[in-house]
Amino acid sequence: MSYNTLTDHIKTYIDLSEKELTEIASFFDYHSYKKKETLLVEEKRCDQLFFVGKGCLQLYFIDSLGNKKTTQFAIETWWLTDFLAFQNQHPANFYVETVEKSEVLSISFSKYQELLAQFPKMEKYFRSIYEMAYGAALMRLKYINNYSKEEIYYRFKNKFPEFVQRVPQYVLASFLGLTPEYMSEIKRHTHA
Amino acid sequence: MSYNTLTDHIKTYIDLSEKELTEIASFFDYHSYKKKETLLVEEKRCDQLFFVGKGCLQLYFIDSLGNKKTTQFAIETWWLTDFLAFQNQHPANFYVETVEKSEVLSISFSKYQELLAQFPKMEKYFRSIYEMAYGAALMRLKYINNYSKEEIYYRFKNKFPEFVQRVPQYVLASFLGLTPEYMSEIKRHTHA
Repeated sequence: MSYNTLTDHIKTYIDLSEKELTEIASFFDYHSYKKKETLLVEEKRCDQLFFVGKGCLQLYFIDSLGNKKTTQFAIETWWLTDFLAFQNQHPANFYVETVEKSEVLSISFSKYQELLAQFPKMEKYFRSIYEMAYGAALMRLKYINNYSKEEIYYRFKNKFPEFVQRVPQYVLASFLGLTPEYMSEIKRHTHA
Repeated sequence: MSYNTLTDHIKTYIDLSEKELTEIASFFDYHSYKKKETLLVEEKRCDQLFFVGKGCLQLYFIDSLGNKKTTQFAIETWWLTDFLAFQNQHPANFYVETVEKSEVLSISFSKYQELLAQFPKMEKYFRSIYEMAYGAALMRLKYINNYSKEEIYYRFKNKFPEFVQRVPQYVLASFLGLTPEYMSEIKRHTHA
């Protein structure tokens, strides 16, 4: 992965010259991570916003029984952090971890502010991304409140078949609110 | 309510002249609604974004048993619509309804595009709003996945005491995933 994954993604939302895109890319740091590396720790300052160039990240917390619970994941071209903690510069309420070997671009809060001040067009890019992400979160809350866990799995599988192939089963199970055992059972019963 | 609620709110995020704010306000239509009026219907085109000047709106759907389920609500200075359907101009997955007598500013999708094109500074305003809303939705998903329904009620009450006073009990119960009967029981047991 080069910085092109990011600049190509930005170009699908806003018009920028190659020079501007190169300057924008320079605000980001590139990191290559192994599977299960930690990028953000709960209760620590949340100073980084992550863009997945390759691989998969998850946003999770540890529940009262000590289980990891996946609240969100992110694959190529998705953004991830604890957005509330990042925006308010409060301690994080989540962990961020690589689900698999990943290549990630990150930007600090102060650089993010500089980037937006220097390239106001990037406001449109992030506005579009967050508008969509918020809308999708409301749809997810509807699903949780409307369907059985089995139905949630099938609707998710029909809508995003590539994710079901792509994301490890234990992450997907946690994201959909299923135990890994329950998900195995659903899949076994239906050859899903 | 005048258009000032909106322009005052915008001013807390971005610098604009009084002339610009007056022009921005002219993109919006003002409506006064009674309690329980419908502003958006599921499966119909989602062409409006709503700003609550006074009162309270809810975003809800009808579940498979015919019950109204509140996915989100909005009080003064909050924005509400089916954001995914609005952005993609797809049929709505939700209804929007007034919870109480409300004064609302609305903007159509085409006017919203014009507004953002004519006043690019508004991208920053909406980027900030959606970034926060998405972050809050992730926190809500964490709560749902981490706490018992009773704990969710108490944590919500401690964090947002004014909402518990303000929002009708049946809406709050639905938003928190409780039955109205269960919420009455919690409140009775603890004099909450």
